[in-house]
Amino acid sequence: MYWEKEIETMPREELMKLQEQRLQKTLEQAQKTAFYKELFRKNHLDPQKIKTLEDLRNVPPTTKEDLRNHFPYGFLAVPLEEVVRLHSSSGTTGTPTVIYHTAEDLEKWTNQVARCLYMVGVRRGDVFQNMMSYGLFTGGLGMHYGAERIGALTIPIGPGNSKRQIWFMRNFKTTVIHIIPSYALLLASIIKSEGLDPKEDLYLHTLLIGAEPHSEETRRRIEESFGAKAYNSYGLSEMNGPGVAFECVYQEGMHLWEDYYYLEVVNPETLEPCSPGEVGEILLTTLNRDATPIIRYRTRDLAYYYEEPCPCGRTHRRISRIRGRSDDMFIFRGVNIFPIQIEKVLMNIPEVASNYRIILDREDFKDTMKVEVEIKPEFFFGDLLKLERLRERIKAELRSEILVTPEVVLVEPGSLPVSEGKAVRVIDQRKM
Amino acid sequence: MYWEKEIETMPREELMKLQEQRLQKTLEQAQKTAFYKELFRKNHLDPQKIKTLEDLRNVPPTTKEDLRNHFPYGFLAVPLEEVVRLHSSSGTTGTPTVIYHTAEDLEKWTNQVARCLYMVGVRRGDVFQNMMSYGLFTGGLGMHYGAERIGALTIPIGPGNSKRQIWFMRNFKTTVIHIIPSYALLLASIIKSEGLDPKEDLYLHTLLIGAEPHSEETRRRIEESFGAKAYNSYGLSEMNGPGVAFECVYQEGMHLWEDYYYLEVVNPETLEPCSPGEVGEILLTTLNRDATPIIRYRTRDLAYYYEEPCPCGRTHRRISRIRGRSDDMFIFRGVNIFPIQIEKVLMNIPEVASNYRIILDREDFKDTMKVEVEIKPEFFFGDLLKLERLRERIKAELRSEILVTPEVVLVEPGSLPVSEGKAVRVIDQRKM
Repeated sequence: MYWEKEIETMPREELMKLQEQRLQKTLEQAQKTAFYKELFRKNHLDPQKIKTLEDLRNVPPTTKEDLRNHFPYGFLAVPLEEVVRLHSSSGTTGTPTVIYHTAEDLEKWTNQVARCLYMVGVRRGDVFQNMMSYGLFTGGLGMHYGAERIGALTIPIGPGNSKRQIWFMRNFKTTVIHIIPSYALLLASIIKSEGLDPKEDLYLHTLLIGAEPHSEETRRRIEESFGAKAYNSYGLSEMNGPGVAFECVYQEGMHLWEDYYYLEVVNPETLEPCSPGEVGEILLTTLNRDATPIIRYRTRDLAYYYEEPCPCGRTHRRISRIRGRSDDMFIFRGVNIFPIQIEKVLMNIPEVASNYRIILDREDFKDTMKVEVEIKPEFFFGDLLKLERLRERIKAELRSEILVTPEVVLVEPGSLPVSEGKAVRVIDQRKM
Repeated sequence: MYWEKEIETMPREELMKLQEQRLQKTLEQAQKTAFYKELFRKNHLDPQKIKTLEDLRNVPPTTKEDLRNHFPYGFLAVPLEEVVRLHSSSGTTGTPTVIYHTAEDLEKWTNQVARCLYMVGVRRGDVFQNMMSYGLFTGGLGMHYGAERIGALTIPIGPGNSKRQIWFMRNFKTTVIHIIPSYALLLASIIKSEGLDPKEDLYLHTLLIGAEPHSEETRRRIEESFGAKAYNSYGLSEMNGPGVAFECVYQEGMHLWEDYYYLEVVNPETLEPCSPGEVGEILLTTLNRDATPIIRYRTRDLAYYYEEPCPCGRTHRRISRIRGRSDDMFIFRGVNIFPIQIEKVLMNIPEVASNYRIILDREDFKDTMKVEVEIKPEFFFGDLLKLERLRERIKAELRSEILVTPEVVLVEPGSLPVSEGKAVRVIDQRKM
């Protein structure tokens, strides 16, 4: 049931001792980097005097911009000859952020991912079809190495080409897939459109869903469509990639591996610590990586943490599903809105199909919001009066969630653009 | 200088003893597969009696069609739970061919690739940018694991997006790239069009070129363009992928690792063995793989083997560069022609740029061949009379190589379609 019982169920007190111990190594590595050396100097911080997790609060957080501004080697703590891999963000919005790994770093990351997969029941004998992109993006290779470590039969198929995905799933009796949640819903509808039943005609027992914030309602739909369990996966390339936190079989929060990271949840404005249950930004400090130490990284991901112990017996703290990213949020007529709030409402309405989008625009100096919603065929091609009532219901439920009333347009199933990668949910035309 | 000195320089007699020994294991594994069990039965062969490499000739060769017809598990020799990876051909022309690997198979393959890379000087401290596709195609992951084993810094960038490739090469001071040869020439021209000199403004010392037959003249052009060494790599997914054979620093033939494969070169019609220097089809038998044993596989690749020992000290037999594939060959007015023959002529003419294509058509029941050739700008935009003389010269040289006279059209540099993947050289419109 556990990949590494001792560490996964370690009493919290011991776990925190381990964290403080590993923190020393992280600080030691940090001092070897150009960036932190300068940061410590400028802030009159003596890393030798940072002994406790409490002390760590004096170190200013590190941001994505810091990583970018110190490209390429400002965060590198080992001689370049010891680096065997680099991963980088796509760099579509400027200089990419780059993370370096030693062979030992990769080994630890592989173990970390194997721990997650084992936790949700992936075993030797499973057939694991990895639909995430291989290459510089960490989702593909990261999960690949972990599954291989467990000894599952790994199919490195990568993303896209749904018909081929389905062909492989059927011919190799795939039991586990790794997939972006919005694509999982699209894939289910493509399977149905081929006259197949994803519940009956596949061999899946588990989906690993990640790389995109999504709501509990979306997860439930995925599980219902495939008749299989869907587990939420959290990771970011700055913290290795997949494997940072992962749901256990209780599906109530994701265990964040505290022997690998020190977790803080803080108010994004004041940086004051949040209490359990209070949504804030996740800050992470690497505790088990040599090449690229990062201290108090501002992930921009919003979540809360649980204080209660988990019935699974693991003592590593759970975080909630990601409620959004502080940079996903849009402001509409003065209200802060996360796309995932809208998704949550829509996915709870049985008549709604799996695709939707939010279009923001400006008309006569006033912001407008239109939500286009695909409706399942059995409802869309039915009674017009009922359809109008459905539209009003959606409007009302959206209003009660986001406090403003958007225009709602019901559209034919399959009429909105689809993506085999991360879904584009918000189109903001106000900037033009 | 050697990754595994003992095995790489093993006296041939010992090496052949090792082969016969390993052959027993291959036959043992083969008997566990549905396909070979039936093949032995049908041909009244007792695998126990196949003791020598000589005896092996009694086993009928295995073809790609056999692999396809016995999809998915006909060639699997181990329980499915022991398989940790599958690779497959793209399956664009029907059922894909699938090769299964145990963890030990992958381990051996990784070592095999590391041996190749080490042979041409790739070391810890090198920066290796892998421009081959990651995923089911073996070129990306195969080379990736080998480079990681050596401890080179591996950039898993994958193919395409030339501007990004160049950006990475410059910013991370890439020293080694893995690339398709036709794309290497295209990339060099893109680098130049950005006002950079591939010789001066990059840090490359080595290119690993493979996945596409190419001529010696193409290799020389690649080396001149980049001011770096280009080593020829041979592999096919049925035999793991990259690492089957690889050039040493003498660049005269590729060492085929005979502790991994038993090599035969045969006449593709009669299957009689060829003598050294005589071009025939390569047949390979796996000697170091458990999950998917394959005996006397008809690769369709045409080459000859060298008998003389190599000055590098390695005793493993060398094969020539691939002269074409028996299924690449086209018949034009009764003459067998390989595209590579045409490439060889063109790349030897200094005025010719890097791109060309061959268009076959039918007019009034007669076959026609047109060769479109890009000419370097300094010659194309010059004296028309000289251009006409150049055209006549190309025609004459082609005639003396392929024995028929094609129409030759000189075109502006950059005017023919380019590909970031495998180049499409022959367009055969006669089939319509």
